[in-house]
Amino acid sequence: MIGPSLVRSLHHKKYRDREGLFLVQGRKLVEELLASGWPVRGMMATEEAVAGLEVAGLPLQVLPAAELKRLGTLVTGNELVAVVERPDEAPGGAPVAGELVLALDGVSDPGNMGTLLRIADWFGVRRVVCGAGCVEVWNPKCVQATMGSLFRVRVEQASLPGLLQEWSTAGTMVYLADMSGTPVHQLALRRPAVLVMGSESHGLSAEVRSVPGTRVSVPGRGGAESLNVAMAASALCMEFLRQTEAG
Amino acid sequence: MIGPSLVRSLHHKKYRDREGLFLVQGRKLVEELLASGWPVRGMMATEEAVAGLEVAGLPLQVLPAAELKRLGTLVTGNELVAVVERPDEAPGGAPVAGELVLALDGVSDPGNMGTLLRIADWFGVRRVVCGAGCVEVWNPKCVQATMGSLFRVRVEQASLPGLLQEWSTAGTMVYLADMSGTPVHQLALRRPAVLVMGSESHGLSAEVRSVPGTRVSVPGRGGAESLNVAMAASALCMEFLRQTEAG
Repeated sequence: MIGPSLVRSLHHKKYRDREGLFLVQGRKLVEELLASGWPVRGMMATEEAVAGLEVAGLPLQVLPAAELKRLGTLVTGNELVAVVERPDEAPGGAPVAGELVLALDGVSDPGNMGTLLRIADWFGVRRVVCGAGCVEVWNPKCVQATMGSLFRVRVEQASLPGLLQEWSTAGTMVYLADMSGTPVHQLALRRPAVLVMGSESHGLSAEVRSVPGTRVSVPGRGGAESLNVAMAASALCMEFLRQTEAG
Repeated sequence: MIGPSLVRSLHHKKYRDREGLFLVQGRKLVEELLASGWPVRGMMATEEAVAGLEVAGLPLQVLPAAELKRLGTLVTGNELVAVVERPDEAPGGAPVAGELVLALDGVSDPGNMGTLLRIADWFGVRRVVCGAGCVEVWNPKCVQATMGSLFRVRVEQASLPGLLQEWSTAGTMVYLADMSGTPVHQLALRRPAVLVMGSESHGLSAEVRSVPGTRVSVPGRGGAESLNVAMAASALCMEFLRQTEAG
């Protein structure tokens, strides 16, 4: 039985790390969770919220709405809160033939991080590697922003400069998203590849910038100084997919 | 002289509409405002905040930080608040040769609306037409999210079904973003064109859906059910730009 103090402690990174657990909240996300088969340590819900969900065999506690409101982090949607085991994936090997991996360098905003996982999932990118300065994906705001893509994309933690160097030596194409790079549609994109996106405010870190690779930009011709990291990722992944399907 | 009660009233749509004014807040946005040449009715700032800005000839009031904090809507960045005249553009004519116009149908989230203007600006789209159900672009959250692109993109209000029908008859290609449409890279995109994006939750409205046009989707191959409207717009605009530059 999961106690309320454990659930509330999981609002904070320190306890998520200590317990290896995180929260999944709200109907939409819990439906995605149940479809994923990820191990659920506990689920708390109002009687109404749980109606129609496949919860047979799950450690379910039915609670009054007022009590659930105090357990979750959401403004609305707290009528369903699940405590879930984190996979905490170790870094995998270099991308396999034909694979595209997304690597994130210093993406600190949980909304952007969640949206990036959703973009990866949409475009068929199966692995996202988070480097230094990235917000943890188990942050409740990030979990919500993924809209469930978190359960379908493998998220790994790694120190990017060493990893990218190693992958490059092993034959992986390294593409560094950079405002001053070559417009993506002017490149013949090759796979296996890793596409590295930098932070919202500072772009790529100096350490990642020093890794040998191809600098790639999103073509633009207007007056905006920059695109948000998620907008840029969407445009770049779209072009990777297009060239793969065309090739 | 602009009084504090007028400034505070502009937090609300009703008074923005009545006065034909809106707020521009924070250093970054005010810099963009000054570069734009848009008519400034009043500017309130702390002495520190105004340092280094080109404010000669502007109706500037230097105020203490505590007073400014009560005037603005931001959590931080209220040390600079400008009151600006809205252009309130009438609907323009059909797109000219080679032009791409973005039309928005029911985009109600101010953050998404602002990001869409930023995307338009990035990809060189000079006009955005807002149809029924769109949040007003003068909403402070939207203004912030544009990062200044609001000053470079012409925003028009129109009833989309009639407008699109008229433009189509006049020879404009109408592209309707729709999950079930043809993947964009499989189409030979033609201009002049209007790209119509629907609401975050409901897609295109029935009225807009009934307009004759080409349904276009963002290719995907993962498990995500949908892309956020801004992500989709970024990917689609990227492909319009690519095909134009390649063609």
